[in-house]
Amino acid sequence: MAQIISNFTQLQIFKNLWFNSYSTIPKLSEELSIDRSNISRNLRRLLKHHLIKTGTEKEKTEKVGRKASIIQINEDKGYFIGVTITENSSTAFLTNFRLKIIQENVVEENITVDNLANILIKTIRPFQSYFEKVICMAIAFPGEVDIEGKTPFFSKPLGLNESKKLNRIFQGKFQFPVYLENDANAGAMYHFFLNRNDHPSNLVYSLLAIHFNSDKIMGYLGNGIIINKQLYEGSNLFAGVSGEMFKILSASNKIYDLDSLKKQLKKITSIENELNNFINESSNVISNIINLYDPSVYILGGYIEIFPEKIQKKLIEEVKEKIVNFQARKHEIYVDKSLMRSAALGSCFSLINKFFNNLDVANKYLSKVV
Amino acid sequence: MAQIISNFTQLQIFKNLWFNSYSTIPKLSEELSIDRSNISRNLRRLLKHHLIKTGTEKEKTEKVGRKASIIQINEDKGYFIGVTITENSSTAFLTNFRLKIIQENVVEENITVDNLANILIKTIRPFQSYFEKVICMAIAFPGEVDIEGKTPFFSKPLGLNESKKLNRIFQGKFQFPVYLENDANAGAMYHFFLNRNDHPSNLVYSLLAIHFNSDKIMGYLGNGIIINKQLYEGSNLFAGVSGEMFKILSASNKIYDLDSLKKQLKKITSIENELNNFINESSNVISNIINLYDPSVYILGGYIEIFPEKIQKKLIEEVKEKIVNFQARKHEIYVDKSLMRSAALGSCFSLINKFFNNLDVANKYLSKVV
Repeated sequence: MAQIISNFTQLQIFKNLWFNSYSTIPKLSEELSIDRSNISRNLRRLLKHHLIKTGTEKEKTEKVGRKASIIQINEDKGYFIGVTITENSSTAFLTNFRLKIIQENVVEENITVDNLANILIKTIRPFQSYFEKVICMAIAFPGEVDIEGKTPFFSKPLGLNESKKLNRIFQGKFQFPVYLENDANAGAMYHFFLNRNDHPSNLVYSLLAIHFNSDKIMGYLGNGIIINKQLYEGSNLFAGVSGEMFKILSASNKIYDLDSLKKQLKKITSIENELNNFINESSNVISNIINLYDPSVYILGGYIEIFPEKIQKKLIEEVKEKIVNFQARKHEIYVDKSLMRSAALGSCFSLINKFFNNLDVANKYLSKVV
Repeated sequence: MAQIISNFTQLQIFKNLWFNSYSTIPKLSEELSIDRSNISRNLRRLLKHHLIKTGTEKEKTEKVGRKASIIQINEDKGYFIGVTITENSSTAFLTNFRLKIIQENVVEENITVDNLANILIKTIRPFQSYFEKVICMAIAFPGEVDIEGKTPFFSKPLGLNESKKLNRIFQGKFQFPVYLENDANAGAMYHFFLNRNDHPSNLVYSLLAIHFNSDKIMGYLGNGIIINKQLYEGSNLFAGVSGEMFKILSASNKIYDLDSLKKQLKKITSIENELNNFINESSNVISNIINLYDPSVYILGGYIEIFPEKIQKKLIEEVKEKIVNFQARKHEIYVDKSLMRSAALGSCFSLINKFFNNLDVANKYLSKVV
């Protein structure tokens, strides 16, 4: 296969343009410390493949007083699909090349390893007119995934365990490559990259997931960890596993899925009663994570957003009370309002991150649309 | 002040000799990728200051068939004192330049911020004939310490809190510099460096400390964390804080200090009874740390060694049972038999590590003995 991006300079330029909304030759030259003629030469290759485009607008450069052509990513050159799978729902986004959302679809159904592929197909069906130009489907997966993002090798929520050897669960089902990232890692990547001017050194993102038992509704956290601006996955890819589950509510015949839980939560007005146990137990787990990791940014995401705002606030307050030396710390703690969007888009960020750090990976994915 | 070590090459050579027991010019040249004449030139400066010595033994070099002079650190050029402070004891080691132990002294007394300096003086008194040649006293401190190892700014166990501003607690008390490292970090550094041929990427060392209450004896863990072969201290130096305490035994009038606790523990023969609660609660805390950090090496140290072997074993077994996906992980979990030695020597390793990475730090400390 011929190389589409033929050297690391081209990849650097492409990355710079991806993260900034636009640039110019002088700007690229300055930011990448590469001389202008070298930038120009390498831009030609990216232009040839229509990966970038030159704008009609001009930007006045400070140094020479001339106007320089604006250069941008060709955002419609290819598309991504980002998905989050939980045991209760599948949420998919169709995005353009720069991960701007074009379409969204949610399927709320109980998911296991057996119906997973079919539910995925159902979730992304509304995007099918784009399938030909989809570069990759990135899935935020509720379980451990190998380092290449190819094989899910564990998922307690979906009932997938090592012995089943379901390595090739997605094979032959889709006309584009499938990339997997652990769901909490994906959420952490999203929040890490979101603040583009100031990526926090140490960040923890927790994804609150929900498990419906016959007698009670349980919550548990998956945790994605960034340390020194890098995803930290541990020595066995298990970093961030939080073994503890906590009761959200006792089940009744009225609450058996996400939709009925949402309705029940809307009715709850008094914090002191039904959800006190949830707040107490989940704040123990969360404060423990913050105590042990001491991140500069902690984000609680996932299904926390279906709880009333009052409960969210009370939970964060209790977390803060349980943090050792709270007053002496500088950090942000907040609730992610985006439900499963962070993880779904985060899985795309995880892929893009690998893409921009490896010429072979970049060329492999681009070959789908160039 | 004139530079003792005048460039980074000299520091590299010094570091290489420190970590290996001896070397030769050809070996140094190969390992550091520096040509032999450059090695020779820089060795001269280290020889001049008697920081290194050439041995009488010769080593046959493979390449040229000649014998090469052996070069070693001058181990008696200077000495270190490494100390661990807990709320119940002060343990000090006098070591030579390569951290080989020469003398040891333990003082078992309840320690607070008020008697700390005096107890330290008492603990190191047996070493006083060496004081003139002591390069530094490194203290494994039960609390948070600033990044330069100068100021303790927190110690719940010793009753030191920020508002007291006891920055200069050691000033003027000793005729050599004092360096501080958090005790658990020190222990982690010790175990990281101990395995010199294969430093584990991710390691957690927990130091079990003991707190005597009027009605019960409590245990708690300080945790030192190595991630990607670097000490991980978090965004506010609080990484590894484990907020939870656990009951070891109910107090009686017979158990009020370390010595009486040791005697009581020796009498315990049945695991099922008195220490069940301790095993259960402490294994929760430990397994949670392993679940969240997923290290390749986990070491439980500190006062765990005063418990009967049977209890230690049972505790490790319970920890393993509580680790998520235990069978799928590759890692070592073990008990550190050295009591406070790891932390005391580890504080010296922490200092040496700073020393070898910074010319100014190296020269500052060497000026004491050169």
